[in-house]
Amino acid sequence: MHFAAALPLQSGASLRDYSLSFETYGTLNASKSNAVLICHALNASHHVAGVYEGQDKSEGWWNNMIGPGKPLDTHKFFVIGVNNLGSCFGSTGPMHINPDTGKVYGVDFPVVTVEDWVNAQARLLDALGIDTLAAVMGGSLGGMQTLSWTLQYPSRVRHALVIASAPNLTAENIAFNEVARRAITTDPDFHGGHFYEHGTVPKRGLRIARMIGHITYLSDDVMNEKFGRQLIAAKRMADAAAPGRPKQGTAPSGGSEVGEATSVGAYLYSTLEAEFQIEGYLRYQGDKFAEYFDANTYLLITRALDYFDPARAFDGNLSLALARATAKFLLVSFTTDWRFSPKRSREIVKALLDNQRDVSYAEINAPHGHDAFLLDDPRYTSVVRSYFESMEVSA
Amino acid sequence: MHFAAALPLQSGASLRDYSLSFETYGTLNASKSNAVLICHALNASHHVAGVYEGQDKSEGWWNNMIGPGKPLDTHKFFVIGVNNLGSCFGSTGPMHINPDTGKVYGVDFPVVTVEDWVNAQARLLDALGIDTLAAVMGGSLGGMQTLSWTLQYPSRVRHALVIASAPNLTAENIAFNEVARRAITTDPDFHGGHFYEHGTVPKRGLRIARMIGHITYLSDDVMNEKFGRQLIAAKRMADAAAPGRPKQGTAPSGGSEVGEATSVGAYLYSTLEAEFQIEGYLRYQGDKFAEYFDANTYLLITRALDYFDPARAFDGNLSLALARATAKFLLVSFTTDWRFSPKRSREIVKALLDNQRDVSYAEINAPHGHDAFLLDDPRYTSVVRSYFESMEVSA
Repeated sequence: MHFAAALPLQSGASLRDYSLSFETYGTLNASKSNAVLICHALNASHHVAGVYEGQDKSEGWWNNMIGPGKPLDTHKFFVIGVNNLGSCFGSTGPMHINPDTGKVYGVDFPVVTVEDWVNAQARLLDALGIDTLAAVMGGSLGGMQTLSWTLQYPSRVRHALVIASAPNLTAENIAFNEVARRAITTDPDFHGGHFYEHGTVPKRGLRIARMIGHITYLSDDVMNEKFGRQLIAAKRMADAAAPGRPKQGTAPSGGSEVGEATSVGAYLYSTLEAEFQIEGYLRYQGDKFAEYFDANTYLLITRALDYFDPARAFDGNLSLALARATAKFLLVSFTTDWRFSPKRSREIVKALLDNQRDVSYAEINAPHGHDAFLLDDPRYTSVVRSYFESMEVSA
Repeated sequence: MHFAAALPLQSGASLRDYSLSFETYGTLNASKSNAVLICHALNASHHVAGVYEGQDKSEGWWNNMIGPGKPLDTHKFFVIGVNNLGSCFGSTGPMHINPDTGKVYGVDFPVVTVEDWVNAQARLLDALGIDTLAAVMGGSLGGMQTLSWTLQYPSRVRHALVIASAPNLTAENIAFNEVARRAITTDPDFHGGHFYEHGTVPKRGLRIARMIGHITYLSDDVMNEKFGRQLIAAKRMADAAAPGRPKQGTAPSGGSEVGEATSVGAYLYSTLEAEFQIEGYLRYQGDKFAEYFDANTYLLITRALDYFDPARAFDGNLSLALARATAKFLLVSFTTDWRFSPKRSREIVKALLDNQRDVSYAEINAPHGHDAFLLDDPRYTSVVRSYFESMEVSA
């Protein structure tokens, strides 16, 4: 959907005109009271559910959560997935033409914030004729947008589902974002953000950024369980364990008193080649990401994360900041999520309770770290299902 | 000290000849029974204590711990600091000439392991005429060398002080090392590891590597306390708080129902400039490191960390692996160290106790994360002091 009116941004800049990509699932009821808006996180889009015709592998990113008969049941609800401004998946972003210059925006695309995204989403709802949302729902950065909806448009949100999120980033969160950004911006192929004109893509930087991201999405436990210290060449290990194996790569004693058992000899002894399975996994994820994700979008989205901080205007007092929220809340966090830990969700819960708001909170004992919000865990999905089932929607 | 005899390495390769840089403090007693060997971690050298004449800022990296009257008292002990093979601080490493080719080693410097380092250190002790060490002591990677000493040369070590260490790296530890290495090796200035010949240094990669390292050295808590979400331009914040401030950068309402308090307006709204103090800190640390640290050394040392795993030859059974250690042990860990957490030290403690070894263990409730092992904490230093005070040394 194209919007011809300029969107004023939190930075003081504005977008002269813009488009938002969105998808809808289910049917808007007569009273327009069953709409649920889904807000996405870093690497996602408006395609939240379902599969495109003839494309088996095009499952929406929250397809396990949203659809007919699913926890967010599209028989009952009209679900809207919207792609945020600055993205590289359809809505106006750095890869599009700046109408003021006739050239690709690149790094000149204005910095957008969570609040700006919410304002743009509100205009989309205006255009769809939807005044009040039954619910807004999002995980991670999507949870921040959900929280912001309840603060920017309190009367337009009846329920807010804030999953694996936080009221702001910690110094460590910002630190990881900054390293990822520096990897991108110091890649010679970044060309100050105008790499499109140079026919290059800062893939080295994108790879590093994605590798760092993946480390923070997973828990230490699940990484140990999934990869541990397993070598890529499991075959080499088997060879090494077999009797009569070739001696190449086995350890000489080097003068040790006890030399015979210092090594089983299956290491490659290389600093350049991937040796452990976790290395292969991260390289693969980095390579894949660098093929399709836009570097300027990465900068914009991580910066939106950094900047989000509703308590900031209230001298850090989150309870004061959330006083204007009137929605009912469900918060969900995951015990092994060290990126947005349960402690951060509890801060939101406490601030809402300080304001006598209606809050449900589930802390799910899941092993998968931050990624858990995208995965199937029956305790998690049943909490969300129950919440939506008990949500009243007029005809 | 130069060593003319080749050193066989765990990989099967060997170093034809090599030199080790070392420093000593205090006096070796007549029975040569008061020697303490200090093993260093990633970014350190043989210069463990004291200050070079006329160089006020040349304090050794463990100067708070080692010296006259300090926890490791050089009035009583003869302390040896040795720089490891592959380093860039004096001992033979990738920046030196390969005698086989007459050219700088660069990336062709053989992969060295913790076990190789210990073998080289043992030869240094041979040359110094020291048969048995009163103690070996090290933190982090230095703790791994200490542990390995007790396994490779059990009869030559009376006491082992293993600080903030682990019996091997977890998948997450390896993951962080791998991202750092990829940042270096994919830097165009790396030139496949032969950057010396090209007159370049992969500084971009080294900066990223160091930034990642610093995040893992600090605890989330201490980062929040030290930097929090403070902006670099504290002055801008003061300006923003002052009445009658210029409106530039303040937030328009953007259509929000409640727009007036969504921002206090002191953000730069930039994806390229450092905005938060944690960003400035990391950039500074990265820049500083890239000026003096060798990229190939970084690869070698992180790989030595990855490879260390004494239980590997015993099917993962650490108790079996440590059976041959006969030294008395002191282990110290720090509660907020998420790189080498107390849990990892406890694994070593348990394995030693399974073998009825003499083990003391102190878990220090310190806020500083992995870095705590280099800092002054009276509970930590007094544990080390007591341990050395009660250590008997014949005349």
